[in-house]
Amino acid sequence: MADFISIKEAMSKESGEVAIRGWVYRERGSNKFKFLVIRDSSNIIQCVVKKENLANSPDNTAEQLWDKVSKLQIEASVEIVGDIKKDERAPTGYEIQVKDIKIIGISDTFPINKDQSTEFLLDKRHLWLRSRHLTAVMKVRSTVFGALNKFYRSKGFFEFSPPVFTPNACEGGATLFEVKYFEEKCYLTQSWQLYAEAAIFALEKIYFTGPCFRAERSKTSRHLAEFWMAETECAWYDLPKISELAKELVAFIIEEVVKNNEDDLKLLGQDIEKLKKITLPFPTITYTEALKILKEKSNMDVEWGKDLRTIEEDELMKHFDKPIVVTHYPKEIMAFYKPADPKDPKTTLCFDMLAPEGYGEIIGGSQRETDLEALKKGLEKEGEKLDNYEWYLDLRRYGNVPHAGFGMGVERVVAWLCKLDNIKDAIPFPRTMLRKTP
Amino acid sequence: MADFISIKEAMSKESGEVAIRGWVYRERGSNKFKFLVIRDSSNIIQCVVKKENLANSPDNTAEQLWDKVSKLQIEASVEIVGDIKKDERAPTGYEIQVKDIKIIGISDTFPINKDQSTEFLLDKRHLWLRSRHLTAVMKVRSTVFGALNKFYRSKGFFEFSPPVFTPNACEGGATLFEVKYFEEKCYLTQSWQLYAEAAIFALEKIYFTGPCFRAERSKTSRHLAEFWMAETECAWYDLPKISELAKELVAFIIEEVVKNNEDDLKLLGQDIEKLKKITLPFPTITYTEALKILKEKSNMDVEWGKDLRTIEEDELMKHFDKPIVVTHYPKEIMAFYKPADPKDPKTTLCFDMLAPEGYGEIIGGSQRETDLEALKKGLEKEGEKLDNYEWYLDLRRYGNVPHAGFGMGVERVVAWLCKLDNIKDAIPFPRTMLRKTP
Repeated sequence: MADFISIKEAMSKESGEVAIRGWVYRERGSNKFKFLVIRDSSNIIQCVVKKENLANSPDNTAEQLWDKVSKLQIEASVEIVGDIKKDERAPTGYEIQVKDIKIIGISDTFPINKDQSTEFLLDKRHLWLRSRHLTAVMKVRSTVFGALNKFYRSKGFFEFSPPVFTPNACEGGATLFEVKYFEEKCYLTQSWQLYAEAAIFALEKIYFTGPCFRAERSKTSRHLAEFWMAETECAWYDLPKISELAKELVAFIIEEVVKNNEDDLKLLGQDIEKLKKITLPFPTITYTEALKILKEKSNMDVEWGKDLRTIEEDELMKHFDKPIVVTHYPKEIMAFYKPADPKDPKTTLCFDMLAPEGYGEIIGGSQRETDLEALKKGLEKEGEKLDNYEWYLDLRRYGNVPHAGFGMGVERVVAWLCKLDNIKDAIPFPRTMLRKTP
Repeated sequence: MADFISIKEAMSKESGEVAIRGWVYRERGSNKFKFLVIRDSSNIIQCVVKKENLANSPDNTAEQLWDKVSKLQIEASVEIVGDIKKDERAPTGYEIQVKDIKIIGISDTFPINKDQSTEFLLDKRHLWLRSRHLTAVMKVRSTVFGALNKFYRSKGFFEFSPPVFTPNACEGGATLFEVKYFEEKCYLTQSWQLYAEAAIFALEKIYFTGPCFRAERSKTSRHLAEFWMAETECAWYDLPKISELAKELVAFIIEEVVKNNEDDLKLLGQDIEKLKKITLPFPTITYTEALKILKEKSNMDVEWGKDLRTIEEDELMKHFDKPIVVTHYPKEIMAFYKPADPKDPKTTLCFDMLAPEGYGEIIGGSQRETDLEALKKGLEKEGEKLDNYEWYLDLRRYGNVPHAGFGMGVERVVAWLCKLDNIKDAIPFPRTMLRKTP
């Protein structure tokens, strides 16, 4: 057969003969003709097969081929040659008059149709991935990954690969996954930060995107047991510089998604004009200011010293239409590696970035504690054994430098940009407390 | 202090005042002056501190500062302002006459010096990463990751994220890591291929790079328990097309490394001119031809049907100075998803790419079996329960298409390009049967 092009390319030709291939997305017809809407990874297009146009071929008589075509079910795969033309009645404005069709793979009756339960769709995730909805999400996700690489590399960062197997707990052991490691045991990383801190003494500015694991006993729409984090760690950075980097990154990701995924965003019901308006600068407020806004604008009381819960983050973000950076959370509730602000030691030099519209925290970061004794005290307070952290403490013993970093939850950003109801749809094969299949 | 630039940038200025920062790489001196070789992520440079040039500052008198400078140990971190000039006697051809120096972090006596055992260096990996050797390797590694992204994106591939937690074994269960997954158990992926195959029905051409896990009870220099694979899967590809893609990828990676890492390769003792000669086309031979070469040129007998072992791969590669593709391995020894060649059913439509100079298999790939019954038979033969693979078999039931893919072992490629003795040095924190720390 001819040289195949994507449906999108075919549509850009507007007329003439084209060869496409893909899967039957919809089908209807009579005993004289058949409308097949074909999908590939680029788009969908209506194709009309008329019985009288089919010719005998070495494989089939025209009659045999028509018989096969008329039995085609949704998701069957086909190769098609025909003439393309504009047709306003067709779902995407074009139609192909089929001259030749080859059936590559027939399809059993596709198990997914309208009105199926979320659980059923998750059971059939390997097939549901083909839906236009999920395909669009996965394309946006791919753009987000690409944007991360482009952004950091344009700034001279090196891509690094911290280990997944870790002997230590980081940020508490309760949600660690335990692995049988030959005769012993170890854990799956929840955060690559400690290892990233080791790397900056060699490479200075690093980034990396990889899977993280958290045995979260939660059934909410915001948590996954396996999720992807895009982390960065930078020697010589302080809180203002690292939070500025985070803002630039998010603005750049939005720019790339708007540029590359217009069709996908439309299909997902996302308002592109709204996204286009999310440009720098993003506001920065302190935790203390956040409490004040909650009190004054939302009549919501949060006791100073308590962490912001989802309900409070969502309420706060009702007053912003861009992501915001919240700095200086209370020292008392922060992890051991977040340093006290010398100007106000009950707060730390840390920040979260919150997305608008109830998508919550998408980035968490901080300067890192450089004082050896403060680190030891912090670890002990969290009930950690110092012995497990000797290697990490070494980083403070040999040529310490100020440094900072942050981690971005990839699925949270994808969920926000794609306007998803549930974070499970931001990753191809979600893993949660209740699901580890297919 | 001034605006800091990297040592590499400073050297490109050739003269005038520069401000740099980094770590003490070497030090020597008298009671009048001190030679400090400073390193940062870009290079090293010699700096001369003379007692009489130091001035009083708010933090220190000149005398106090000199006292601190003369006590500086290796790996202490400093900020330096001074005048740069060419000096052929200096280790990298330039020297900075220090006008101001600020000590950021002192260093205890650095535990690593010459002639230490491999095991000791692995114990101190968090510090040994700072060595110029490992820093150079990690920069090459970063280029390899960047090349993967650039290559696949330039060809319209989408980046995908298959799951790490998997309920099924793939390629045998003996080397799977078992995870306590809430009340149940699951495994860490050894290969993302089956999930990648599900994705091509939506995205057609995908790639992804991520960690894989294999509980290999091996102490050789070629195996890691945690390693990074760069995988791809493509709808509508056959063996010639997928093996051509693999060749183009490897050629492109070499091109990028040669372009971006000349200094690093030199430092690692790699012959850049030799790498530059590794251009397309790469030879393709069949397994049967490989046996013939081993017999005729190396007088080595391998019984037809046996897999090539490391010793045989290495011997074979003595006759090639470029990577080669070996196709059509015996069906009997191949995984269930590799299809028989219809023209010669005792062989499969698969390929390996072997690197020269004893670096062995860097890529393994194949067309994928599309016949449902053949897949079932293959799985049963490997002792698998079909129930565990129902979701995978669904991919053959609904609009099957020909497809193919391959996986590249990132560390093996890095080890080859950097001329490493041991694959452990191709990853920042190696994990093996005997090591899961630091």
